[in-house]
Amino acid sequence: MNHNYIIPNKWSIIEEGFDAERVTASESLFSIGNGAMGQRANFEEAYSGDTLQGSYIGGIYYPDKTRVGWWKNGYPEYFAKVLNAPNWIGIAIKIDGQELDLNTCKVIAFYRELNMKKAWLKRSFIVELSNARQVKVESLRFLSFSLTEVGVIKYSIKALNFSGMLEIAPYIDAGIVNEDSNYDEFFWKVLDLSENDNGASILSETLKTKFQVCTGMKNVFHLNGKKINPTKKSTKSEKYIAHHYQIDLAKDDKVTLYKYAGYVQSMNHPKKDLCSVSHDVLSKAVAIGFAGLLKQQKQDWEKIWATSDILIKGDLKAQQAIRFNIFQLNQTYTGKDARLNIGPKGFTGEKYGGSTYWDTEAYCIPFYLSTKDKQVAKNLLLYRYNQLDKAIENAKKLGFTKGAALYPMVTMNGEESHNEWEITFEEIHRNGAMIYAIYNYVNYTGDYNYILEYGMEVIIAVARFWSQRATFSNFKNQYMILGVTGPNEYENNVNNNWYTNYIAKWCLHYAVENMQRIGLEYPTDYKRISHKTNFKESEISDWQSIANRMYFPHSESMGIFMQQDGFLDKEIIPVKELPDSERPINQKWSWDRILRSCYIKQADVLQGMYFFEDHFSDLKLKNHFEYYEPLTVHESSLSPCVHSILASKLNMDEKAYEMYLRTARLDLDDYNDEVHEGCHITSMAGTWLSVVQGFGGMRNFNNKLSFNPSIPAEWKSYSFKINYRDAIIQVYKSHKETIYTNLSDKPLTFFANNRRLVLAQKGLISLK
Amino acid sequence: MNHNYIIPNKWSIIEEGFDAERVTASESLFSIGNGAMGQRANFEEAYSGDTLQGSYIGGIYYPDKTRVGWWKNGYPEYFAKVLNAPNWIGIAIKIDGQELDLNTCKVIAFYRELNMKKAWLKRSFIVELSNARQVKVESLRFLSFSLTEVGVIKYSIKALNFSGMLEIAPYIDAGIVNEDSNYDEFFWKVLDLSENDNGASILSETLKTKFQVCTGMKNVFHLNGKKINPTKKSTKSEKYIAHHYQIDLAKDDKVTLYKYAGYVQSMNHPKKDLCSVSHDVLSKAVAIGFAGLLKQQKQDWEKIWATSDILIKGDLKAQQAIRFNIFQLNQTYTGKDARLNIGPKGFTGEKYGGSTYWDTEAYCIPFYLSTKDKQVAKNLLLYRYNQLDKAIENAKKLGFTKGAALYPMVTMNGEESHNEWEITFEEIHRNGAMIYAIYNYVNYTGDYNYILEYGMEVIIAVARFWSQRATFSNFKNQYMILGVTGPNEYENNVNNNWYTNYIAKWCLHYAVENMQRIGLEYPTDYKRISHKTNFKESEISDWQSIANRMYFPHSESMGIFMQQDGFLDKEIIPVKELPDSERPINQKWSWDRILRSCYIKQADVLQGMYFFEDHFSDLKLKNHFEYYEPLTVHESSLSPCVHSILASKLNMDEKAYEMYLRTARLDLDDYNDEVHEGCHITSMAGTWLSVVQGFGGMRNFNNKLSFNPSIPAEWKSYSFKINYRDAIIQVYKSHKETIYTNLSDKPLTFFANNRRLVLAQKGLISLK
Repeated sequence: MNHNYIIPNKWSIIEEGFDAERVTASESLFSIGNGAMGQRANFEEAYSGDTLQGSYIGGIYYPDKTRVGWWKNGYPEYFAKVLNAPNWIGIAIKIDGQELDLNTCKVIAFYRELNMKKAWLKRSFIVELSNARQVKVESLRFLSFSLTEVGVIKYSIKALNFSGMLEIAPYIDAGIVNEDSNYDEFFWKVLDLSENDNGASILSETLKTKFQVCTGMKNVFHLNGKKINPTKKSTKSEKYIAHHYQIDLAKDDKVTLYKYAGYVQSMNHPKKDLCSVSHDVLSKAVAIGFAGLLKQQKQDWEKIWATSDILIKGDLKAQQAIRFNIFQLNQTYTGKDARLNIGPKGFTGEKYGGSTYWDTEAYCIPFYLSTKDKQVAKNLLLYRYNQLDKAIENAKKLGFTKGAALYPMVTMNGEESHNEWEITFEEIHRNGAMIYAIYNYVNYTGDYNYILEYGMEVIIAVARFWSQRATFSNFKNQYMILGVTGPNEYENNVNNNWYTNYIAKWCLHYAVENMQRIGLEYPTDYKRISHKTNFKESEISDWQSIANRMYFPHSESMGIFMQQDGFLDKEIIPVKELPDSERPINQKWSWDRILRSCYIKQADVLQGMYFFEDHFSDLKLKNHFEYYEPLTVHESSLSPCVHSILASKLNMDEKAYEMYLRTARLDLDDYNDEVHEGCHITSMAGTWLSVVQGFGGMRNFNNKLSFNPSIPAEWKSYSFKINYRDAIIQVYKSHKETIYTNLSDKPLTFFANNRRLVLAQKGLISLK
Repeated sequence: MNHNYIIPNKWSIIEEGFDAERVTASESLFSIGNGAMGQRANFEEAYSGDTLQGSYIGGIYYPDKTRVGWWKNGYPEYFAKVLNAPNWIGIAIKIDGQELDLNTCKVIAFYRELNMKKAWLKRSFIVELSNARQVKVESLRFLSFSLTEVGVIKYSIKALNFSGMLEIAPYIDAGIVNEDSNYDEFFWKVLDLSENDNGASILSETLKTKFQVCTGMKNVFHLNGKKINPTKKSTKSEKYIAHHYQIDLAKDDKVTLYKYAGYVQSMNHPKKDLCSVSHDVLSKAVAIGFAGLLKQQKQDWEKIWATSDILIKGDLKAQQAIRFNIFQLNQTYTGKDARLNIGPKGFTGEKYGGSTYWDTEAYCIPFYLSTKDKQVAKNLLLYRYNQLDKAIENAKKLGFTKGAALYPMVTMNGEESHNEWEITFEEIHRNGAMIYAIYNYVNYTGDYNYILEYGMEVIIAVARFWSQRATFSNFKNQYMILGVTGPNEYENNVNNNWYTNYIAKWCLHYAVENMQRIGLEYPTDYKRISHKTNFKESEISDWQSIANRMYFPHSESMGIFMQQDGFLDKEIIPVKELPDSERPINQKWSWDRILRSCYIKQADVLQGMYFFEDHFSDLKLKNHFEYYEPLTVHESSLSPCVHSILASKLNMDEKAYEMYLRTARLDLDDYNDEVHEGCHITSMAGTWLSVVQGFGGMRNFNNKLSFNPSIPAEWKSYSFKINYRDAIIQVYKSHKETIYTNLSDKPLTFFANNRRLVLAQKGLISLK
């Protein structure tokens, strides 16, 4: 597979020429979304080649019957997954009776562009059908950011070398399947099909979860730029409505179909109103018109880019890549709805079920915190707050008591979806990330109210979990956390994973610290929280004593914290001595061999030191980086960013850039030949972190915002903006100077290379 | 569930009265088998209640598509399982148009007996149908040990209170299903149905594996003891043939059907001949007749009991239980065919797929060694020898090289069937059991030729595995075996499981020792073996150096070998302090909790010390027993026997008896409410071991046969026989005396309570 397929461009993702082998990969890369829904870049017209059809609605999931080898107590029965939703993009085309299908026509020209500035997807192509008719097709499609229930397609066909009959049939189809179905079940039931003059709708319901969705369309035709009203003939089947139109084309005639369509669903409206709301919404869209909606789309995205764009000069591919990542994150999650979250593949594929992982807390929240209004990150926190009861229930299922909570590894609705004991039951460090995200949010925004109103309940429930999960070893006279899987999933069921023990200890201290502070400063809240959580004073001393006596594996001779007990019993051979033919080890080696090797999938000790960088001296950090980096294979897309950030911090600029490159174009250049399954949405936040926290050196510990920028030798300059406590600050870095600009109307204090700066409103300072 | 349901009897398993709730459990307990085939005690007539239909043919398996949650490299695609085979026992009965079905009739009397002395299954019952007709039915069924392709049923019906029309329809049916099917697939294809006068046959083939089986029947009728030839009407469907007969009954008339049936299959005959062979075999059976076959059956079993019976006086339930266990083992495996082995459920159920586990080598071989001709145990060894190539292939798949072999955890044909990484890839101690079984066999029989002809190749391949699987720790300067699951499956992916390291070290030494001996004593064999295995002289020193530098976890302060690294970091709380409500922990606790607990599923350090008892002083043994026994929950049926044997050895008679009781009537009294799934066939060998090696104190180390008998306080006396190097010796033990009898024609030397005895042929000695 060619890994330089996408044409570099500063604002667009572009492919030229048609390659049937790339269709599924491009479907992922050119995906569009608007937070409420999203879809792969499937073709509107028929396509008989290899394709992964996917259109997804945020929050609409199905509990698919799980498939496991050997059942374990405590496993969930179901794997909740975002479903492929009814198809509303479909437009069937026949020219003089011949179906338009890129897989069977001769493709003379093909161009596809995803414009990230304006958030639309364009295709234009010229084909010759087997009956020698040549047509040119142009399609422009977007999902409206203003009317989030609406998607629009402008689809035009021009007769290039013939006069003849065009049959064009826009349709909606609820007869879709999920590729990712464990037992090939069908997940949708159609309740109703209805039609009105130029429109149609299908009301369908998910089995078991009983979400209802009205999929609607309204179609408007133009011939050579003038509106026409061709005669409609409709066909209906049990799950499908198509409107057929026959239009006589003279040579050079161009027919344009404006298809206004989309989903109206029961999370947002009463079920009984869905179809009438759908009708109203689409009528409104038709009234605004395609051009009006397109203009609005551009304006909506101007606002997004105004606070989140990163400009890179001197490296077009880097520029394209960072914008792609920022664009995808904004398409996937807009932060308007606390019931939604960010699946590892966003709206670009079915893999991982579209569910929520700890990726959100560990990687995505910092991105949204810095590029959006704080309400966006807060909604992500509230998502977990609202699922606290289910996390408590989950912990109870595993034998924990007294309101201890274990957040699920994978979830859609708060219930655990994953079924691998070493992950489901043992990858418990995720519980720490929930608290770290609260800390991060409060630290960044200064919004302590969040802890009072919501956060403290979560902090208490998680502290209770850790206090029960730690066990006391008489032999070592310390607390241990036995049988865990750390962020480095290439070790399973280990004892005393350093990261897990560290974050557990920190959670316990953080619980103590906050509960004590609330007791002193907010007595009314203290009373309310204590009552609601059934909190006992004595818990404070329990938590303290466990935290204070937590054991950490450590090598005295090297002065290094060990990843887990027994790490030094392994054969320690650096990754660079592994032959290329053995990598990636997760494809070449059996699981036991990976486990007993010293190789690290993703940052683990280093991840912890990154989270708590203020706890460790630069020397300690350097020693650990130098010990663990050579053993890390980075076979998780979430790994290189942390190493890139730490390498920047340690002035290892080449290493930082090397690591940055491994994340930046992971999907665009499809390093691992897997983008056909969807894009790595959550790890895109890691690329942003590599730039802003890595090269930019942005930090925010102890209420101090600071920067320490460096620049890769390969770039001329770069700049980024962040939103910090309602001020927008722009950091520009070239090889000559660093310019800090306060774009907001209030003064801002921060630290640049350890120097305290106060920047007046709209002020600017340049440091050489 | 009543755990005292089976009526105690010294030679029979008996139930009286009909309980629909117990049908599936009784189907397991009353199972019959003849080594070549076996079946659950399903009813011949229709039964509409809950039942698990099962009839199995040794060696006929299907590679069912596996079901896993998350795929790992190296997993097998298939789970080979013994299939439910076509039904040949079926006899449909109608009385004046009403179907005979114990689930819907009024059952007036019901009696079932499995006679273990004569190896037949009897039922007799009186029912009243809803049309008020009362009939008495008697059925006697057995699977011939002489004609192993034949099963026979004598089925009689007597009209008790009416005259009327009996419709009786013996049938064969290939339209059977497997309950244990991962995707509800059908595994058989019917190739041909044919009929002749009083018989019929169905030729069917397993999908994928393409085994062919001809299922045949021939039916003979008697009325009131006289042969009759009622008119036949046959019905056929795609997979089914029934022969219908209508017989007018006067009150007190008794019709008897002799159904001669069974399987002829393609492992034993050319496919093209199967149906004609079936016809011939059944004709022969008809010619011998039911009475003749029954007599032969009794004679065959007299021979079996002559060398394997254990007599217990003073405890009828113990007597019944030990015979049940010996009986089931003999039904399951007769040792005639090296292509067959012993599934954990034998022919009594589908669970575990009927495949071969290390149970065979660790528990069953000693039983067959002592109660049968040595060819039987040798055939079990040859089973593995014949699968050596596949074991080498399996190891290769996991990254091992140069002819290293890893025997599968679960197999039917030599290929691995199991799909749980912590078992499939990590429960590698099984490889040691393969070698231990060879050692055991040679030690017991003195047949060193086995090593020359076959064993050495296996020993070399396994030594190669261990030498590659061990890794060197620079830190500890010793060899480690990382990431394993020991026999105690309540620990997964641990480092340096003592048992595994110990048996690995022993295997390496055993390989060195034998290769050196062969080099000195059998130079021609040495050359041949070296050539065939591509053996290099240098391997000897590799193996030696790894074995000599093998690491063993150990507590200096306690003088105890630790089960694995880090065991002492656990909370150590004896099992007796666990509330009953928490047990069995495998039903009450989630997997992670089990793993981080100190609780032991089955003997592990103790299992190793049992295997290599001659390496450890009694004091060492005692210290380890006292440390580990209180932590063992015995949630494997293979666990208590080892503890019973060791407790006997350590003169802990009460503990020994307590452990014995946990195995002896496990199935008969259905301790765990699971016998409906099938009986624990392989662990039945453990009960035998508890008596012979435990109470009897039989040992055979270093070419010395020895006894050290004790007797449970609850018994009056017991006696057992063993076959040792062609001599049969009987050991009788009462509270007063021990009598050793040499039943054979050659003198025998052995040790009794450390005293050397020589017993002349037919000699007897009594020790007080």
